[in-house]
Amino acid sequence: MLVNGAPGSSINAEDRGLSYGDGVFRTLRMQAGRPVCWERQFAKLQRDCSALKIPCPSALVLSSELQQLGKTQPDGVAKIVITRGVSGRGYAPSPQAEATRIVNLTPFTAYPFDYAKQGVRVHVCKVRLGHQMLLAGIKHLNRLENVLAASEWQDQDMPEGVLSDISGFVISGTRSNLFMLRGNILYTPNLARCGVAGVQRDRVMDWAKQHGVTCKVADFHMEELVQADEIFLVNSVFGLWPVRELADYRRVQHPVAWKIQEWLVDESH
Amino acid sequence: MLVNGAPGSSINAEDRGLSYGDGVFRTLRMQAGRPVCWERQFAKLQRDCSALKIPCPSALVLSSELQQLGKTQPDGVAKIVITRGVSGRGYAPSPQAEATRIVNLTPFTAYPFDYAKQGVRVHVCKVRLGHQMLLAGIKHLNRLENVLAASEWQDQDMPEGVLSDISGFVISGTRSNLFMLRGNILYTPNLARCGVAGVQRDRVMDWAKQHGVTCKVADFHMEELVQADEIFLVNSVFGLWPVRELADYRRVQHPVAWKIQEWLVDESH
Repeated sequence: MLVNGAPGSSINAEDRGLSYGDGVFRTLRMQAGRPVCWERQFAKLQRDCSALKIPCPSALVLSSELQQLGKTQPDGVAKIVITRGVSGRGYAPSPQAEATRIVNLTPFTAYPFDYAKQGVRVHVCKVRLGHQMLLAGIKHLNRLENVLAASEWQDQDMPEGVLSDISGFVISGTRSNLFMLRGNILYTPNLARCGVAGVQRDRVMDWAKQHGVTCKVADFHMEELVQADEIFLVNSVFGLWPVRELADYRRVQHPVAWKIQEWLVDESH
Repeated sequence: MLVNGAPGSSINAEDRGLSYGDGVFRTLRMQAGRPVCWERQFAKLQRDCSALKIPCPSALVLSSELQQLGKTQPDGVAKIVITRGVSGRGYAPSPQAEATRIVNLTPFTAYPFDYAKQGVRVHVCKVRLGHQMLLAGIKHLNRLENVLAASEWQDQDMPEGVLSDISGFVISGTRSNLFMLRGNILYTPNLARCGVAGVQRDRVMDWAKQHGVTCKVADFHMEELVQADEIFLVNSVFGLWPVRELADYRRVQHPVAWKIQEWLVDESH
C-alpha cells in the first residue's frame, strides 16, 4: 500500500475520509502489473473528485503508483481512495486541506467459474436506497447503505444482492451495476437519484451501441425485472455474472449476457 | 489522542470507518477534566452503535480515556469515533472485525458572546437531506450531505446553516438541532427520515416537560419556521444559540430561548 506515495498502512486519524466519508474511491483489476481499463477508471475518479470539489491526483502519478505495486503482485485487485485530507473538527472543508491518496493492491481471489457461466443466485435486499441527487452516481465513501444491504444475508451460494430505492425502483447490485434484456432491448436503472455508475456499466452501453442494440436507462420495478429474458450484473472485479435465480426469476441460458461477457474481456473495448 | 487506548494519531488505512463511513461518533464538551453530560452522551453512542450492530466499548473504558486526556487539557472538545474496525474489501462486515475506538481532545475555542445572547444569523442551505429511515437520527460517519451543506457559504457572520429535506421539511442546522416556539408550544423537526438526534435536543425536550411546556415533534416547512416567535439551535459544543436572522425572520428578543439556555448550563439537568 502507498499512502501519498510512500509505503505505509495507516492514515491520520483526523482525515476527513474517516470523519465524514469525505472522499471517493475506485476498485479495479490489475493484470500483468497494469491497471485494467485505466483510462476509463481514471476518468470516473476525476469526475467523482470534481463532483465533490476534491483535487484529483494526476493519472500519471496514480498509474505509476499502481505499476510500482504491480511489480510484486502483477495480478490483483487495486483500490484507490482519494479523500479531502486532514482537517480539524467542522464539516466545512478547510481550503488548506491537501487531498489524501491511498493506493492499495491485494491478491485477486478467483470466483467459482460457475458464477460467470451458469449465473448466480441473487438475494433481494430489504434495504432501500435513499435519494440524494447531489451524490447519485458517485463512488463516494458514504457507503453505509451498502454495508447494511450486504449484512442482510450470509448464504455462500448467493454472491450478490439486488437493491431497490425508496420509490421501489431497481437500482443495482450491492457492488455491481445491473442490466436486463427484454426482447431486443437492454435496460439499466436510472442512477439520477442514487446508486453508483461504474465503468463496466459504461462499457456494456458501448457494447450495445456498437452492436446496434438499443440500451435504455430507465426506472423499473422488481416486478418488471423478474419478467426479463436475461438479467446480468457487472463490476470491474468479477466482470459479468448472469443471474440464474432472483425471487421468482429462473434462467439457465444467458446467450446475450455471454456475448457481452466475452466482449468485456477485451480491454480495448 | 488515544486509538484503542494507546497514544497515537493514525489508524489502519483499511479501517471500515474510512472505507465506508462504517461507524459512529460523538462530539462533546470537557470541563474540569470531565466529559459533560456523560451519561446522556454514552447512551446515544451505545444506541447508535447498536443500530449499526457495532460492539460499543464500555462507558468505563471511554470515560477513563477521556479523563486521561483531560489531565493535560481540562477544558476542551472531545470527539469519540467508534468504527466497525479493519477488514479487507467487501461491504459485508467480517464477524472477526474488532471495533476501532478513537478518543480525541482538542482545545475549546470560545464563540463570540453575542452568538449566545443576541443570537446568530443563519444561512438557508440549498442542499436537501435525503431520506433513509434505517440511518435517520444516528450520528454515523456518512456525513457528505453535511459537508456539502457547510461548503455553501463562507460568511464569518453566519455561524450556522439550516437544512431542509427533499420533501421541503426543516430538519436541523448543519451541526445542531433546531427548535421553534409558536405561541406557547415548542416544535422540533421529526427526525424519522433524516437528521441526527442529539443530546441537547433531548435536554430541551426535558426542559419543556419539567416546565409544563408542550413540545411537539413535527414536520414543518421553512415558510412556517420564519413565522415562529422564537427559533434556536442547540448542540453540545456551543450550547444554545437563538436565531436573530434567517431569511425573512428577524428577532432581537429571545426570552424563552434565554431561559432554556440558562437551564442547559446546569449539567445535572
